[in-house]
Amino acid sequence: MSGDAFGHLLDAIDKGRKGAVEIVERDDGLFFTGGGIDYMDPFRKWDPVERRALRFARGRVLDLGSGAGRVLIHLQERGYDAVGIESSPLIARVARRRGARNVRVMRVEEIDDRLGTFDTVVMYGNNFGMLGTVPKTRRLLRTLLGVTSDRARVLAGNTSPYPAKGARQRAYHARNRSRGKLAGTIRIRIRYREHVTPWLEWLFLSPRELEQLLVGTGWKLARLVQDESQRYVAVLEKT
Amino acid sequence: MSGDAFGHLLDAIDKGRKGAVEIVERDDGLFFTGGGIDYMDPFRKWDPVERRALRFARGRVLDLGSGAGRVLIHLQERGYDAVGIESSPLIARVARRRGARNVRVMRVEEIDDRLGTFDTVVMYGNNFGMLGTVPKTRRLLRTLLGVTSDRARVLAGNTSPYPAKGARQRAYHARNRSRGKLAGTIRIRIRYREHVTPWLEWLFLSPRELEQLLVGTGWKLARLVQDESQRYVAVLEKT
Repeated sequence: MSGDAFGHLLDAIDKGRKGAVEIVERDDGLFFTGGGIDYMDPFRKWDPVERRALRFARGRVLDLGSGAGRVLIHLQERGYDAVGIESSPLIARVARRRGARNVRVMRVEEIDDRLGTFDTVVMYGNNFGMLGTVPKTRRLLRTLLGVTSDRARVLAGNTSPYPAKGARQRAYHARNRSRGKLAGTIRIRIRYREHVTPWLEWLFLSPRELEQLLVGTGWKLARLVQDESQRYVAVLEKT
Repeated sequence: MSGDAFGHLLDAIDKGRKGAVEIVERDDGLFFTGGGIDYMDPFRKWDPVERRALRFARGRVLDLGSGAGRVLIHLQERGYDAVGIESSPLIARVARRRGARNVRVMRVEEIDDRLGTFDTVVMYGNNFGMLGTVPKTRRLLRTLLGVTSDRARVLAGNTSPYPAKGARQRAYHARNRSRGKLAGTIRIRIRYREHVTPWLEWLFLSPRELEQLLVGTGWKLARLVQDESQRYVAVLEKT
């Protein structure tokens, strides 16, 4: 028994265990499987938006929430000097087992200039929303100012929560708004076998909401990579 | 919102909905996906034991807990006069949509001679354990005596819970035993999206335990179809 249900899940997927499927429990009693991302997919199977936006990566790269190494290993194979940050020691082990060479076990809140300077920060797999709230995300962006070069870019991946699909989703959005949260905030925990994570918040926001969040952080929206889906990558540059 | 999570799941699978995966919650906090059975598989993909045991079907057939019609539709296509019993109206609709011609919405406890007389009773997909307790299962077997011909057979499908895999499973077995239940009893509920079934018990028992359960029911173990797996079909005949 451990709170690192997501780590045990990725470990099991990597070991090819049958029935290794992510179960997500939302705080209104909604259950669903799969986070919408195949955590170990090779580049050719990635979401088209993430693939296209990767052309904006350059220089030394920081992968925030590098997980099982999907993005990190690909960047490494393309010859980038890439460092992954991953809070779970178990997940970092999985990534290393899969070939990731440079994963640091730390929380994004612990990032400081001991990591050196980066030219690109990647937050794929909806990771731009991983801190769950606007203030925490803004704080992270300010932290990133200090560990990046003048010409740095953030590739901020997320999925717009609009339009809400169905009455239940609309009610969930309304509840968030009434609590002063962004409508697309979700409060979830991950379950796998006997493991369950603590409750955590994840942020889904529209490109417009993202642009508003940027004000005063030292970053601006330089380009938006999107298609007919609700997924997008916002390319941020320093103001 | 409805308690028929399993019905909504089968409906979604049949409609090809993405993410339509069975989530099973056990009462000790264990979560897993998939009941181990693909509810709509064609005959060629069935468990080998179930395929082999089907040769013992003959005459008029009653399929108990016919679900999405996996077994019922196959029997129908083979030319059997087959009737399915299914307690969920939604699941019965799914089965009919998939081509099942003779599904009755009723609980197995409601079976009586208005259904006519059967020569074979099929309980596949571990359905021999669906009533969850030894007394209820014995009562069902006695009911079946009255709606079956003298030469009738019951094809009782189940999976032995032994040997228990891992410490958690052994502890679960021990807890069951301490409560006077068969070790392989599981207390579960099914979740799908916002739907959740009531808690229900399901029985997994070894062929030996099954034979003991039969004593005094009017049925005996005539043949055991099994392989190297823990799945089996017990072919029961009248004593």
